[in-house]
Order: sequence, then structure tokens, then C-alpha cells
Amino acid sequence: MPAPLQTWNDGAVKSAIVDFVTKVTTPNSPAFVPPADRIATFDNDGTLWCEKPMYIQLDFILRRWVEMARENPALADQQPWKAAVEKDYAWLGNAVTKHYRGDDSDMPAVMKGVLTAFAGVTVEDFAERAGTFLRTQSHPMLKRLYSACGYAPMIELLRYLESNGFTNFIVSGGGRDFMRPITQELYGIPPERVVGSSIGLEFREAGDGGDVLTQPRLAVLDDGPAKPPSIWSRIGKRPILAAGNSNGDIQMLQFANQPPRPALRLLVLHDDAAREFDYVAGAEKSLELARQYGWTIVSIKDDWRTVFV
Amino acid sequence: MPAPLQTWNDGAVKSAIVDFVTKVTTPNSPAFVPPADRIATFDNDGTLWCEKPMYIQLDFILRRWVEMARENPALADQQPWKAAVEKDYAWLGNAVTKHYRGDDSDMPAVMKGVLTAFAGVTVEDFAERAGTFLRTQSHPMLKRLYSACGYAPMIELLRYLESNGFTNFIVSGGGRDFMRPITQELYGIPPERVVGSSIGLEFREAGDGGDVLTQPRLAVLDDGPAKPPSIWSRIGKRPILAAGNSNGDIQMLQFANQPPRPALRLLVLHDDAAREFDYVAGAEKSLELARQYGWTIVSIKDDWRTVFV
Repeated sequence: MPAPLQTWNDGAVKSAIVDFVTKVTTPNSPAFVPPADRIATFDNDGTLWCEKPMYIQLDFILRRWVEMARENPALADQQPWKAAVEKDYAWLGNAVTKHYRGDDSDMPAVMKGVLTAFAGVTVEDFAERAGTFLRTQSHPMLKRLYSACGYAPMIELLRYLESNGFTNFIVSGGGRDFMRPITQELYGIPPERVVGSSIGLEFREAGDGGDVLTQPRLAVLDDGPAKPPSIWSRIGKRPILAAGNSNGDIQMLQFANQPPRPALRLLVLHDDAAREFDYVAGAEKSLELARQYGWTIVSIKDDWRTVFV
Repeated sequence: MPAPLQTWNDGAVKSAIVDFVTKVTTPNSPAFVPPADRIATFDNDGTLWCEKPMYIQLDFILRRWVEMARENPALADQQPWKAAVEKDYAWLGNAVTKHYRGDDSDMPAVMKGVLTAFAGVTVEDFAERAGTFLRTQSHPMLKRLYSACGYAPMIELLRYLESNGFTNFIVSGGGRDFMRPITQELYGIPPERVVGSSIGLEFREAGDGGDVLTQPRLAVLDDGPAKPPSIWSRIGKRPILAAGNSNGDIQMLQFANQPPRPALRLLVLHDDAAREFDYVAGAEKSLELARQYGWTIVSIKDDWRTVFV
């Protein structure tokens, strides 16, 4: 068997991961955790795949907004359709950064646009549209398909954990049904192990069958303090390993800690302008807590031998 | 390998199950379904375990209501605490039967009692209490532990499906977190594959950790038309096999049907007063639709060689 984590550079971070996995999988070790309880939860945007210059899902929605404004020109004068039509992506990026800093002033407009973008379609139709987008459209700066914007070291980590009896889940603030069509192929994580934000769904009966249709209302915004309840709802267990990259992941990382049981918390630091992006906006508080509590900070620049799959 | 479904009597129903499983697992058959899509969803109360003379969870809650009325005697004059203290179980049974007939007049009182019974405890504490109850308390008429009130033929069916590449989920109107502590042991179904009703959860941060606490509000009432959206939310796929026993399962059974893909719908009929119970209350509409659409009606009296595990 080759040494694990080939896409990671040797160093304290790689050692911390290998030591943790060794410890929890060594029978008779005081830190041993039975396989059924080896639950690992991963944020997606900025943790498993690239989230800059904007969330991948936002590009998907932007294109739909442009389409909506074409069908109904009055929308082109209102946010967020205006930003989409004028390609004013700074307005949108700013709305999200403000959100992570606690200022939700642009959120009502953004949410209205998000909730109406795909309302009234079957869940299967939505999955088809999301999957096609991810497999055919490219990242505007990295010039690679969105379906190839996953981080190779994190995907290798998923495989390494799996081969050590872990069960991996995605627990993302991003849209659950947006991610699902690609997670098996990209991460080896099946749809039932994808936890994320979601809009309302409703069953429409039709004779001896029927469809589940999307509704223009938010069901779950799976971010920040909502992540631990989502984890319990969907998994019914606490993770022993949790990985994130922003203030929205703080509570998930806290929830993984249940002494005396061991826990590994990973926080991905985007500090590599040459190979990916260099930013801390929206992650300030999580970095502060990581330093305070000794969470493991993963430097893309220093710890990853390669970045993309 | 022994013949499958030994706890089932030979006949049309057993044949329908075996024929369906054979068909969807035969490569190159037009009805072949790949393993990843062999999703089976099972209601719990009345489908996998006994629901009479009252829901098992109701007995759990009743005992808590008696305890609450002891702590606060004013409660003993109000429903549902009054019914609990006076052992007026007919009032409660009736409230549920009325619900399934479309009359929700007693539901506000019942819900208030249900929501306040275990509010403010950690999810781990709740799991501990539910698990202990199920493993130590007995069914009032069957004189067996609640943890032994599962139906042997359905459990054998779960194993048979699993050995044919199916993934089984519970999709119940009962409480998700009430069932979870016993589902692995009783049904071989892990917590993450238990879908059900739930009360609100909230994260309470504490330093570098924190707990998820139950809240006195309903999050999901996973019954009737709510089941297909729950299935999509939790699984992200349609089942090809769905099993239920009441009007609350109708939409789940409809949702499993997506022609031209094959689907098997099972409806358990409680017609065995000698070995279990004989009732159709709350199942009238589902039986009518089963006959109309050709769903497979499983007669406990005729189709099950043994009833309990």
C-alpha cells in the first residue's frame, strides 16, 4: 500500500491527520472509536471545492437570472437580476462577505432571487439542470470544468478516511440538491450523505404516482449554528472529524468535540494566490478560534502538494 | 443458500416480492435497476413493529406525562396529562384515529403534550432515555419487550433486500430520534437511514464544544404528503419499493411509482386477531387505493408464517 496522502506535503498538518486516524483505528487504544462512530463531516464551498471568485452555485443562479430578465425585462432594474444582467459580480460577492460579517442587508433581495429561480420544477428536473451545468460549464478564472474544481488533497483525504472505516458526509451551506448530482462522481459521496441548504418541497399527487416539486420558500439555511442540528437530523451522530474553512463552519467544528472522545478539526486557509486564491474575508472569526482552541489550520500553500483534481 | 423469506407463507404475495427482486436484479433484464438505485422505504408503526393498542412512542410519552403531572399537579386536570394520569387510553387512541380520518380536533392538546414532554434535553440524553425504555419496558398485551415487537417477516424482508443490493430506509410518522436508538439492533438500519417526525433542535455553544438541545416546537410531521419530500430531502432518490400500512403511507407508495421503472408497493393488512390485532381504522383509504391500483396487500393472517421476532 502506498503511503497515504500523497497530495499533501509532509509536515505538522499531514502528521496530525495520520496520527489522529491511527489513534482512533487502533484496537485497545484508549482513543479507539468503533467504525460505526467514525463520522466525518465536510463543508463544501472553500473546503472541498473552490468558492472564488464566487460560489459555483451562484454562477448557476446568475445564468438563470439573466434568462429570467430576458423573459421579463422589468426584472433587469431590480437586484439581484440587475447585478446578473450587468455582470456586477462585486455586488453579489459583497453581499455574501457582508453576511459572514454579520450584515444581512442585501440578503432579502438575494434570497428572493434564489427562491424564485427554480420554483415549481420537479426535483429530478432540477438535478438534471444542476448536473448538466456542473459537467459542461467552466470556472471563469481557473479555466477548468466546474466538475474539476474539487481539491485533490481533500478528495484523497476522503478516500483515506473511508479506507479506515470512516463514513464521510458533506455538510454545506450550499444547496443540497445542487451538489448531489456531482458528489458521487467527484467525491465518492452518495446523495443520502449530502447535507445542505434547501428550499421547500411539496408532493403533487397524480393518479398512482406523483412528483416532488420545488417551492419558492427556504426550508433550511444550513450554515453556522444550523449545522450541528442538521448533522443530528441527518446523521444521528456527532462527527469525530469536521473540516471547514469559514465562520459558517465554527459550530460544526465545536460540535465534533465531545471529550474524552478524540476529535480532529480542520480549517482550510486560502493563502495561495498562485495556485488558487488568497483571502480570509468571512473566515476571520474561525481562524481566531482555531488559534485559540488548537484546531488544525491547513495551509493550501504549505500543506498541499497539488491543489486541483 | 436457504430459500428466501422462510417466515412468509408461500402464495401470491411472497411470489410478488421474489419476482420483483429477481426482475430488478437480473442484468440485461429490461427491469434491471442498478444497486445504487435500489432504494426501499418502510413505514415503522404497523409496518415494521406493532402499533396497537397504542403507538409504542405514546406509551413512552404517557409515562413522561404522568411524571410531569406528579411534578406539577395542575397538569392532571388538562388533556393530555389527564388521560395519562387516569389511564384513559381510549381518549388518545381516538385522537389518532380521528386524525387519520381527517378530524384534527384533539391534535393541539396532544401536540402540546408531545412537544413539552422532553424539551431542553441534549439529543444524546433523549436517545439514552428512548433506548432504555425500548429495551426494558414491555408491551401491555403481547407481554414481550418493546424491542421484541418487530415483525419477523418484515425483518427477514429487510435482510433479503439487503442481500440483493437494496438500501433500506425507515420513513415513519413516528419520532425519528425515538426510533434511532433501537433501529440498528432491531432492523439492521443505522441512524442515518431513519427518517421520521422530529421536533426542533438548537445548538448551544460552550467554549470549544457544545450540545444540540431539543426544542418545544415541531420541525417535521413526517406523515402522508410530507413523506415524499422527506424521502427526497434525506435520500435524494425515489424508492423502487415502499411498504406501509395506513392512510399516512399513501403518498410514499405513490411516489415510488415512476414508470417505466418497476416499483413494488406493499400494504400490510392487520387481520390477525389471534396473533396480533385486527383493524382497518386509519387504513381505509390506503386499502381502497391498493385495490384500485394493484398494490400488494400483505395479510398478516395468510402471508406470515410467524409474526414476531
